[in-house]
Amino acid sequence: MIEPIKPETNSVTILDQRALPDAVRYWRCQTADDIIAAIQSLAVRGAPLIGIAALYGLWLAALTLEGSPAFWEQLTREKDRIKTARPTAVNLAWAVDRAWAAVSGRDAKSAVAFLRQAADRLAFEERQRNQAIAQYGASLLLTNSRVLTHCNTGSLATVGVGTALGIIREAYLQGRIESVWVDETRPLLQGARLTAWELDQDRIPAKLITDSMAGTIMAQGRVDAVIVGADRIAANGDTANKIGTYNLAVLAHYHHVPFYVAAPLSTVDLSVADGTQIPIEERSHDEIRMIRAIQIAPTDTPVYNPAFDVTPGVLITAIVTDRGVAHFPYQASLSQMNHERNTILTEEASSHDGHQTN
Amino acid sequence: MIEPIKPETNSVTILDQRALPDAVRYWRCQTADDIIAAIQSLAVRGAPLIGIAALYGLWLAALTLEGSPAFWEQLTREKDRIKTARPTAVNLAWAVDRAWAAVSGRDAKSAVAFLRQAADRLAFEERQRNQAIAQYGASLLLTNSRVLTHCNTGSLATVGVGTALGIIREAYLQGRIESVWVDETRPLLQGARLTAWELDQDRIPAKLITDSMAGTIMAQGRVDAVIVGADRIAANGDTANKIGTYNLAVLAHYHHVPFYVAAPLSTVDLSVADGTQIPIEERSHDEIRMIRAIQIAPTDTPVYNPAFDVTPGVLITAIVTDRGVAHFPYQASLSQMNHERNTILTEEASSHDGHQTN
Repeated sequence: MIEPIKPETNSVTILDQRALPDAVRYWRCQTADDIIAAIQSLAVRGAPLIGIAALYGLWLAALTLEGSPAFWEQLTREKDRIKTARPTAVNLAWAVDRAWAAVSGRDAKSAVAFLRQAADRLAFEERQRNQAIAQYGASLLLTNSRVLTHCNTGSLATVGVGTALGIIREAYLQGRIESVWVDETRPLLQGARLTAWELDQDRIPAKLITDSMAGTIMAQGRVDAVIVGADRIAANGDTANKIGTYNLAVLAHYHHVPFYVAAPLSTVDLSVADGTQIPIEERSHDEIRMIRAIQIAPTDTPVYNPAFDVTPGVLITAIVTDRGVAHFPYQASLSQMNHERNTILTEEASSHDGHQTN
Repeated sequence: MIEPIKPETNSVTILDQRALPDAVRYWRCQTADDIIAAIQSLAVRGAPLIGIAALYGLWLAALTLEGSPAFWEQLTREKDRIKTARPTAVNLAWAVDRAWAAVSGRDAKSAVAFLRQAADRLAFEERQRNQAIAQYGASLLLTNSRVLTHCNTGSLATVGVGTALGIIREAYLQGRIESVWVDETRPLLQGARLTAWELDQDRIPAKLITDSMAGTIMAQGRVDAVIVGADRIAANGDTANKIGTYNLAVLAHYHHVPFYVAAPLSTVDLSVADGTQIPIEERSHDEIRMIRAIQIAPTDTPVYNPAFDVTPGVLITAIVTDRGVAHFPYQASLSQMNHERNTILTEEASSHDGHQTN
């Protein structure tokens, strides 16, 4: 499996996902600025991976500042910059806040070491969460299902088997997948460039379509389920995900095709009541007017380019998390899962602290 | 207004629409083969324009064969090749069959002259039909409507103001259009390349989106109507049009947005009872795997690439033709319109024949 991020002794090597699939190019990040640039340019992408990259960015910031007398002041500024690198995916802020709460009060040297461990640990945890999501999600699919997915939610977006694509991988091993429809996912073509490539590597039968073909294959009765990832899930189950997800949810609803969202519980933001409160990033107009270096529309044509859309919980058949499968109405099921997780985290933390003081 | 096709003394100059908007390139067609190649490569595209190009192709074939002793035998072969150049749009077969019925029995020289006149006349008629469609369609829109359109149905697809885009042009002049959402229309980007360009030329306010954003802007309450063209309409109103049309129809239905189809009555094929009988052209996989010369997916990724989809009549609010506006159920209204038109055509034909014999 491809590794989209590799921590080294004093730097972090990332796979530049913009060049895939025609070139496998790596980028050595030595500062928090490098990491922020990688996140903002989408060299690094996918909500879970962004969270991991952010922690490595925070570690690099601490490493750079280690000898500074104003260490905490400067690191706080860097932390805030990293945390706001992109607005929609909540994993970024979640990962940074969690590590920040635990690192405060330490001396600089210990903080550097702690942040590196926190990043490594998050990467490890994400792998475990992917596995759990994959198991829960695969059990929802019948034998020989033909599933449709959007964007990229695989090893390139996470660090493990993936979220939606993790379910597809696990379900394929269990004989539950006949084939996968891959939405190309305009404007940035993560489906065509990344998901088609990952499925090809794994030899899972797949067919690439334009986003505009999804309704037609559903009407032909050739889609048994839609599975997508998520960038942020509100308390009521409203889900922000890659633009085009909402189109699919409406189409699936009309054709009575189950529509599943797969994400670690860290993607659920209980502080946000519903989808209207999720900030949606608008990106450069040239992402639509150009494809790589090629102009495909008049140079000054006005464009609307939201990177994400919000699918209301009512259109989602189930939300598959690492702690189980939630069903509508989501308010209760998501907050119950979150409560259970926090209880476990608190227990883990006290037992961990206990070891430390021994 | 741009002219996508220009007949000369012994040839036909066509605008190569594949190069737009970055290059305005012309292609001089001297044989039926040139015209067939232009149609199949999409240098010439749009159901009404394909019909016109086909008649000019038939004229060029007759011109080339004029001295041949096997004139009719060879011309029949050419006619069959032209008629089957593309399978979905019915205007092609309709135009060829209509001219063929009228040309038979003439000597070669008169046939050449007749076919040229038939082509010129069809181009003239299409301009008139566009105007009629534009008038009927504009009356359906309220003041300051924000409309969404798909693919290209303008001067580049027809020869006049266009079908769906003709309605938009006329409605804009009448103050009924505030702005236009332009679906980019993957895979061949006719929306981004051609429609955005035509609207820009006419200074009609427009915004380009990816096809995957349509649901989101409808959910935001920013679309008052969807207007699209058609390649073939079955007797029951089922409409074959550019892939992605069906997605839009389902999305419009879900969001209670009126969904209009605009096409000359020649696009209605009463010999086809419903959409299941309309042949859907599948095109090259590289149309999806590549954008112009750039690879955007693994080279051997399997692809599904239907050029058209079928929208059931029940999802269509109204079909705007050059002879009025048809509403669901379409069986009765379309066949009534067709009957009226045939009566007029028959009267015209007899009066025309009458003049000839005078």
